[in-house]
Amino acid sequence: MKKHNFYAGPSILSEYTIKHTADAVNNFAETGLSLLEVSHRSKEFVAVMDEAQALVKELLDVPEGYQVLYLGGGASLQFCMAPMNLLRTKAGYLDTGTWAANAIKEARLFGDVEVLASSKESNYNFYPRGYEVPSDLDYFHITTNNTIYGTELREDPDVPVRLVADMSSDIFSRPVDVAKYDLIYAGAQKNLGPAGATLVIVKEDVLGKVDRAIPTMLDYRTHIKKGSMFNTPPVLPVYSSLMTLRYYKEMGGVKAMEKIDLEKAGVLYDAIDNSKMFVGTAAEDSRSIMNVTFVMTPEYKELEKDFVDFCAARGIVGIKGHRSVGGFRASLYNALPLESVKALVDAMAEFEKQH
Amino acid sequence: MKKHNFYAGPSILSEYTIKHTADAVNNFAETGLSLLEVSHRSKEFVAVMDEAQALVKELLDVPEGYQVLYLGGGASLQFCMAPMNLLRTKAGYLDTGTWAANAIKEARLFGDVEVLASSKESNYNFYPRGYEVPSDLDYFHITTNNTIYGTELREDPDVPVRLVADMSSDIFSRPVDVAKYDLIYAGAQKNLGPAGATLVIVKEDVLGKVDRAIPTMLDYRTHIKKGSMFNTPPVLPVYSSLMTLRYYKEMGGVKAMEKIDLEKAGVLYDAIDNSKMFVGTAAEDSRSIMNVTFVMTPEYKELEKDFVDFCAARGIVGIKGHRSVGGFRASLYNALPLESVKALVDAMAEFEKQH
Repeated sequence: MKKHNFYAGPSILSEYTIKHTADAVNNFAETGLSLLEVSHRSKEFVAVMDEAQALVKELLDVPEGYQVLYLGGGASLQFCMAPMNLLRTKAGYLDTGTWAANAIKEARLFGDVEVLASSKESNYNFYPRGYEVPSDLDYFHITTNNTIYGTELREDPDVPVRLVADMSSDIFSRPVDVAKYDLIYAGAQKNLGPAGATLVIVKEDVLGKVDRAIPTMLDYRTHIKKGSMFNTPPVLPVYSSLMTLRYYKEMGGVKAMEKIDLEKAGVLYDAIDNSKMFVGTAAEDSRSIMNVTFVMTPEYKELEKDFVDFCAARGIVGIKGHRSVGGFRASLYNALPLESVKALVDAMAEFEKQH
Repeated sequence: MKKHNFYAGPSILSEYTIKHTADAVNNFAETGLSLLEVSHRSKEFVAVMDEAQALVKELLDVPEGYQVLYLGGGASLQFCMAPMNLLRTKAGYLDTGTWAANAIKEARLFGDVEVLASSKESNYNFYPRGYEVPSDLDYFHITTNNTIYGTELREDPDVPVRLVADMSSDIFSRPVDVAKYDLIYAGAQKNLGPAGATLVIVKEDVLGKVDRAIPTMLDYRTHIKKGSMFNTPPVLPVYSSLMTLRYYKEMGGVKAMEKIDLEKAGVLYDAIDNSKMFVGTAAEDSRSIMNVTFVMTPEYKELEKDFVDFCAARGIVGIKGHRSVGGFRASLYNALPLESVKALVDAMAEFEKQH
């Protein structure tokens, strides 16, 4: 049975990415060696790393003065690396969910943190707006998409200070005005590749301004100087990421992905809004097009587990909601076909009819 | 043409590891999903992580009180994590090569470092012995195998303080008395799996004794508490590592690997010692069985590049020595078949005859 993969991350990747990765595990770039056992210093892998950096610059239209890095350790490591490299006295953060709160916790180890707005009181069900960003901050940090709570900021804020964004779960789902940011980071395992690599886009001239001693591996300048090859990079995750980037380019770039993403999210939100059984959890003006969170209305609540099983029987996996929200979460990352969204919407209609 | 893969890391993996990884990229554990796109919280991957930890305990006979972790970021990240978690005032290090020196550099950010012995003056061509380990150190750090310089310590030292070891390039090549160590770490990409995961074996009761605030991701206790699932682990590198561990178990465990490794190294060192053209660079009592470094004698020196090409034409790859030593380095990791060593030895004999 064909599976419909709604996992929140690691999550669905394009067939192109999977096929080419499987091929390279058997024989990488005609070397006669597996991608798993080839030196990162081989000319074939150096070409992969170079292209993986260049394609990010091309697809996101990254201006001069920025560097693209592939690091290990996950986006969670960026929660401490960002302040370690940028925080002198005070930073501002938006508290928009679990990951944002984790980022805030780490930043507090390195300086003062002002939480400029928070939606915590209402279980993070909206993306705050109308806050002021003081001009004396070293930087302002946002989490553009909140995977668990299904909220998203689909615009690039204008702020009077440096802007840092965790775009782990919505990067490549829309064109981004990179020039407005000083640091962007994203775990690969949603719209880019398998788990194990973290994409970093950093404006070079914001670095080197803090007084603290930064461990070599946690200093962005280390990795810039060596083109992400200071130490052995996560070879396979970088290769798979390159395959996804090539696929995006072939599909027409990030703008084309956005069009499809908007369509897919539209289909699912319409189904939710037209249902008497299902109800969305995120405020309408904050709805994510990557992660759609919804629950059953109180009178049907006890059927939630049944619906997960009902879906599983139809090959629909990964829709159980995170325990912080309950209900369901359907992640509609770039690689998810519209066909899968339709399968889910059909299942919802069918289940509603049966009850 | 069949390739003979002598890369220093990432390096050759068993056919078993490669085949099963390729299969899982197509269909992981009968889920109908690729290993690249499956949630790390799925029961199928949780089982992988559990077994990957259990098999390390079994193969290395890890005593009670120790935890096995799979982390991202590479062994280079451990150079700062180890002192961050263990260094209160003073640590002792052996300076036995480039990686040891890098570890020393990071430790100095967190306290005093006493270098108890160094072979730097002679371009790290021997493994120091006969040094004293003062009893007032927080820990003593060794690099058991020096990949670049071809030296190795094939015993577990008795010291009056905590013992920390970087075993990146020789773990699983011999039985280790884990009880003598408090922290062992190893980048996966030599004897375990593809790049992107780092194996850590840590004695739990040595943690939590330092006063500094440790960033969450850099605190071993974070990962112990969550069984290496605090954040998304490097899924595929962990899976491939498990395949290698299963393969080791099937082959008879670490003792069986050691027997084969000793035989392979013996064949190559004999060829070097019986040659008039090639000469080993490491002192005899310090020779590594994982990385064999050798050069041409002065009268043949200019033929070194020719020999690399001569080997390449025979499918022998990865033997160019690191620039710090020059000449050649043949890495004989566990997965390298004896047949490949014989191919190299034959090439050496043939080349010598021709010149």
